[in-house]
Amino acid sequence: MSQSQPQPIQLLLDEFQRLPGIGPKSAQRIVYWLLNSDADNSRRLVEAISEVKATVHFCNRCFNYAADQLCPICADPGRDKTTIAVVSEPRDIVAIEKTATYHGAYHVLGGALSPMDGIGAEQLTVTQLMSRLADNSVQEVILATNPNVEGETTAVYLARLIRPLGIKTTRLASGLPVGGDLEFADEVTLGRAIEDRHEM
Amino acid sequence: MSQSQPQPIQLLLDEFQRLPGIGPKSAQRIVYWLLNSDADNSRRLVEAISEVKATVHFCNRCFNYAADQLCPICADPGRDKTTIAVVSEPRDIVAIEKTATYHGAYHVLGGALSPMDGIGAEQLTVTQLMSRLADNSVQEVILATNPNVEGETTAVYLARLIRPLGIKTTRLASGLPVGGDLEFADEVTLGRAIEDRHEM
Repeated sequence: MSQSQPQPIQLLLDEFQRLPGIGPKSAQRIVYWLLNSDADNSRRLVEAISEVKATVHFCNRCFNYAADQLCPICADPGRDKTTIAVVSEPRDIVAIEKTATYHGAYHVLGGALSPMDGIGAEQLTVTQLMSRLADNSVQEVILATNPNVEGETTAVYLARLIRPLGIKTTRLASGLPVGGDLEFADEVTLGRAIEDRHEM
Repeated sequence: MSQSQPQPIQLLLDEFQRLPGIGPKSAQRIVYWLLNSDADNSRRLVEAISEVKATVHFCNRCFNYAADQLCPICADPGRDKTTIAVVSEPRDIVAIEKTATYHGAYHVLGGALSPMDGIGAEQLTVTQLMSRLADNSVQEVILATNPNVEGETTAVYLARLIRPLGIKTTRLASGLPVGGDLEFADEVTLGRAIEDRHEM
């Protein structure tokens, strides 16, 4: 099988299969599409990959991905800088931005506390977060780490650090997914939804 | 949403979404993986794409993809050159090679007859196929075009051209997919399976 395809094609198939979510069939489809299509398509893809790796780094303020000194959100004068949502990874920002319900700033920790994996506060951007909070301009910190063990641990740790500063500290709500079936919710989620019930 | 990501990331997301089978979520996942991973990964991907576009062309003999004058199959002395399987596209060769049941040569037409789309025999490599058959070394031509209207039309057309040369001309069997349910077979396929039944 492998000998039936020219070496450069085989190499490109291998490279595409290293990407997340791309299996042998998807790789085959993409490579044959690239072969069939205009050289311009490949050139643009190649340039876009090179450009991203050459120009994208972490935002000086919030550690989101940025092409300039500040990421587009920190650089946007229209965003409310008195509220900071603390997330683990830049991709969490993308998820929150999609909801279009949040208009504040962010802070990317670069992970979550995980003693098992040797990740302590020093491996995260905790010091940088605390210096952002030092000038008293921030009124609320939303701890938007993942609702799993590491994320909860990180949120509890940060809440303890931030509370003495007198800044309001909130956590994302846990509960039933909207549009989901009560019957299919896992017991921990359903239990949390009952505990956190609110008056209508 | 689009303003929340740096311009180079947005551009790369757009480029990945142009690839077949890659939607917004897959593109996001791949781009963030590339951002997170070693620069080596991106460099290798970029080089592999450029290399494929620079070196891969059509095999001089069978019009499969090739990095050299001949494709790996035409260049392989172990393949039976007295049998030629005629296919529409190079990707059909990949599918047949995966079965590991065919050890002959191929000929890629570069499409199928489709008067509606203005594709006649001149747009395909029919002349080149006929010259390969001219020296009497080929004993069987397997018409392995797709079992759809265009593929059948192409097979019938080629069979008529080849028959006067006295070369055995065969067509891939149509019938029930192995492992499939009779109940779920479409009526045309089931009808063909009944017509083409064979003694056990």
